[in-house]
Amino acid sequence: MSRKLGELVKHLNGKLKNGDPEMRIQGIAPFDHAQPGWITFAIDKKILPRMNETRADAIICGKQFEDRPDIEKTLVIVDNPYAGFAKAAQLFFPPPPPPMGVHQHATVGESVSLGKNISIHPGVVIGNQSSIGDNVIIRANTVIGDNVIIGNDTLIYPNVTILDNCQIGSRVIIHSGTVIGCDGFGFAPDGDIYEKVPQSGIVRIDDDVELGANNTIDRATFGQTWIKKGVKTDNQVHIAHNVVIGENTILVAQVGIAGSAKLGKHCVVAGQAGLSGHLNIGDHVTIGPKAGVAQSIKDHQVVSGNVAMPHQIWLKVQTIIPKLPELKKQIARIEKQIAAWGKTD
Amino acid sequence: MSRKLGELVKHLNGKLKNGDPEMRIQGIAPFDHAQPGWITFAIDKKILPRMNETRADAIICGKQFEDRPDIEKTLVIVDNPYAGFAKAAQLFFPPPPPPMGVHQHATVGESVSLGKNISIHPGVVIGNQSSIGDNVIIRANTVIGDNVIIGNDTLIYPNVTILDNCQIGSRVIIHSGTVIGCDGFGFAPDGDIYEKVPQSGIVRIDDDVELGANNTIDRATFGQTWIKKGVKTDNQVHIAHNVVIGENTILVAQVGIAGSAKLGKHCVVAGQAGLSGHLNIGDHVTIGPKAGVAQSIKDHQVVSGNVAMPHQIWLKVQTIIPKLPELKKQIARIEKQIAAWGKTD
Amino acid sequence: MSRKLGELVKHLNGKLKNGDPEMRIQGIAPFDHAQPGWITFAIDKKILPRMNETRADAIICGKQFEDRPDIEKTLVIVDNPYAGFAKAAQLFFPPPPPPMGVHQHATVGESVSLGKNISIHPGVVIGNQSSIGDNVIIRANTVIGDNVIIGNDTLIYPNVTILDNCQIGSRVIIHSGTVIGCDGFGFAPDGDIYEKVPQSGIVRIDDDVELGANNTIDRATFGQTWIKKGVKTDNQVHIAHNVVIGENTILVAQVGIAGSAKLGKHCVVAGQAGLSGHLNIGDHVTIGPKAGVAQSIKDHQVVSGNVAMPHQIWLKVQTIIPKLPELKKQIARIEKQIAAWGKTD
Repeated sequence: MSRKLGELVKHLNGKLKNGDPEMRIQGIAPFDHAQPGWITFAIDKKILPRMNETRADAIICGKQFEDRPDIEKTLVIVDNPYAGFAKAAQLFFPPPPPPMGVHQHATVGESVSLGKNISIHPGVVIGNQSSIGDNVIIRANTVIGDNVIIGNDTLIYPNVTILDNCQIGSRVIIHSGTVIGCDGFGFAPDGDIYEKVPQSGIVRIDDDVELGANNTIDRATFGQTWIKKGVKTDNQVHIAHNVVIGENTILVAQVGIAGSAKLGKHCVVAGQAGLSGHLNIGDHVTIGPKAGVAQSIKDHQVVSGNVAMPHQIWLKVQTIIPKLPELKKQIARIEKQIAAWGKTD
Repeated sequence: MSRKLGELVKHLNGKLKNGDPEMRIQGIAPFDHAQPGWITFAIDKKILPRMNETRADAIICGKQFEDRPDIEKTLVIVDNPYAGFAKAAQLFFPPPPPPMGVHQHATVGESVSLGKNISIHPGVVIGNQSSIGDNVIIRANTVIGDNVIIGNDTLIYPNVTILDNCQIGSRVIIHSGTVIGCDGFGFAPDGDIYEKVPQSGIVRIDDDVELGANNTIDRATFGQTWIKKGVKTDNQVHIAHNVVIGENTILVAQVGIAGSAKLGKHCVVAGQAGLSGHLNIGDHVTIGPKAGVAQSIKDHQVVSGNVAMPHQIWLKVQTIIPKLPELKKQIARIEKQIAAWGKTD
Repeated sequence: MSRKLGELVKHLNGKLKNGDPEMRIQGIAPFDHAQPGWITFAIDKKILPRMNETRADAIICGKQFEDRPDIEKTLVIVDNPYAGFAKAAQLFFPPPPPPMGVHQHATVGESVSLGKNISIHPGVVIGNQSSIGDNVIIRANTVIGDNVIIGNDTLIYPNVTILDNCQIGSRVIIHSGTVIGCDGFGFAPDGDIYEKVPQSGIVRIDDDVELGANNTIDRATFGQTWIKKGVKTDNQVHIAHNVVIGENTILVAQVGIAGSAKLGKHCVVAGQAGLSGHLNIGDHVTIGPKAGVAQSIKDHQVVSGNVAMPHQIWLKVQTIIPKLPELKKQIARIEKQIAAWGKTD
């Protein structure tokens, strides 16, 4: 699976320096672990001053190395070295094995439409009237309900559950243990008990989404819970019914988003943050780790803390909280002094 | 699956106004999405002033519309319109397909008792000596251990795990990825290492409980972890060993409850809250989102914050926290003034 | 499954008092639930003053009872009664059923190495080139990827997922729903979209680890995510790519640890705490419940709160937070008084 250096440079839309495009590259590895014959990358600031020290034959790096005669190594100079590294690493990642078709230990329901070049692994169960696109891989023991639609080139890891009527786009990746289309949490108090509100909507996952492991994404009460194109979620993310997540938004591990919240595009919600229901979060919003968001947020804001506040304020607040015992004493001293003066007045 | 309006009115114990009980209703949908021939509901305050604007043929609503000649629409007037909506929606929800019996790709152990009209989907594994009630549906790839008892009319979604000796009531719903009866987290420090404390108890889930997706409910060390009648949990809830959850208590997503805590009936624990072990939480207690509860709580209290405090105090506290930097400056100014005066004294 | 009392005493390395080593013990149960013929244990302080009140025939207890003629009961005196109880309970725990070999409804790939006395339950899927040690039990519907190595005497509960190339040690216990080797959360921003950073590393789980239910442990970008010997995790723990967890460290439920963090040995991270990426946490560090750790921590520290601070400070801070509204009023009063004086100056 080696690649010609020139092919790599072209794939990254980069510029080759000090190197032979015919050189063959065997793989990619971090700066201090790469072997001769491999390519590495210079992203970490600690690496930049010691570019000549890697054993790799070539380095993916940024434009600051364009006019640096002191660097003897072969360089692949790109605009965005982190993205360049990612794209290069994709080239060296082992391709999936050839499509296996439908394994004899899989169970496929009635009137299921199956695309070309699919791999349906052992133990997979697909319900009736579902449709699976071309080049789809569904790994072992995943369950697909009835009337589910899955686009092309989608990869579903083992033990995933996609329930009835949900729609999954193309080039989607879904990691193990994730549940799509479980019921939204809707109960109407009726005297002492709760009446279940039937959840008749669906989950719609658009193209190029990647969902981490053990996510839970509830179906809508009516209509759809909607994860838009390019969204990436980490593990153990919870998305409630009727939520909409805008394009290319990032949800880090253990985030929880309550019902009917709408998030814009290009947001980042850091780990263990929680959002109340029915909020409107704008585009390009950043929400800090463990933040508790109880109000809507406009575009381009950065918030942190519980209850969430502008991040710049939270940075100050978090230095003051540990000093509260001192502050309290200080106030007591002041009050005592004032009381003493007050008496003498 | 259409229903006569009169039948619906009777089911909701409601009162029909401006309508023909023989009219057929095709389905139920939200106010602005309902089509002619459908019924809708008026719960949201924003809807109430524009009751005539829906395209639906009938509206489920509250008693405030009883004497409102300006409303021309057919009304189904009920005491509790949210519960009325829920019950009406249940009527229109598609019924489960006819029972499939035991699918040929399911595995049923020895001495298993199977009720009438069951559906055991492909990939289900049921251990030995277990007992499954009437009308139970166990969806694909769910695993039931040995000596498990499941009541009647219970619905278990795909990829659930119910481990040995656990007891599940009737009319219980368990969503995908949930694990019932995993070991409680018990380890005795012994020098440098930890000795495992065997977890020999069970989990008992009473009737009419609904458990969300990817919950984890630990078996007791001895005795039982007990989820009482009518409890509803959202997704990713963690319930540790020997916990008792009282009747009709609600646990919202990502709540964690540590070992041996006891919660009363009719409590609500909001999302991402955490409760320490061995606490006693009374009846009708409300715990706010992200609250950290470290002490027992009496009946009817409402608490929030970390560490949890009375909710009314937390509401004030959360407005002050972002002002701490100002408060600190204010104190510094005061101290400076006092020092200045002190010197002149 | 009864045991001779003398055998039990020897197993616990204890000392028998008032008892006959030939007496047969039928089981173990808590102090107030044990029956005649059983053994119990005295750990809880509330038990210690009423040692004669149990119906059990013998009590595991600490050395403080060595010279107590008032205690008539048969005693098994040990250095560490909690660990003694754990070890005794292990003796009475029902042994696993005899090995079943590979169930006919399991699917085993090509070139798989299977040890002696294994139990591969129905619905299990094992990929190609994997290796399963002696006495391993893999319960129903668990999926093992390609090229996975599992040591001896390891127990894997139902519906677990262990993905390609991961390595699991001996005497490991993995609870249901846990995912090992899902992709780390690595994406390089590239204009409007995110490029996936391929995750080519593995997860390595050393001997004597126990992982709770519904954990997610990401594979490394390069190299390995490493859970060292004797680590115990509770349910719903998230461990990101390239994390290292030191020996005998304890992670309580719903903890999240971001990428490349290193934890030392013998740490305890309490429930719902979160650690930022790339931190260095020393040995014997304790992190409180719901703590948000954003900085590295030296050995033997105890921290709590969000953002985490020394625990002793947090204990004071948490008593002051609910008093912030009063403090604010106090400051306003002081300022008013000072302003009044200022005017008269």
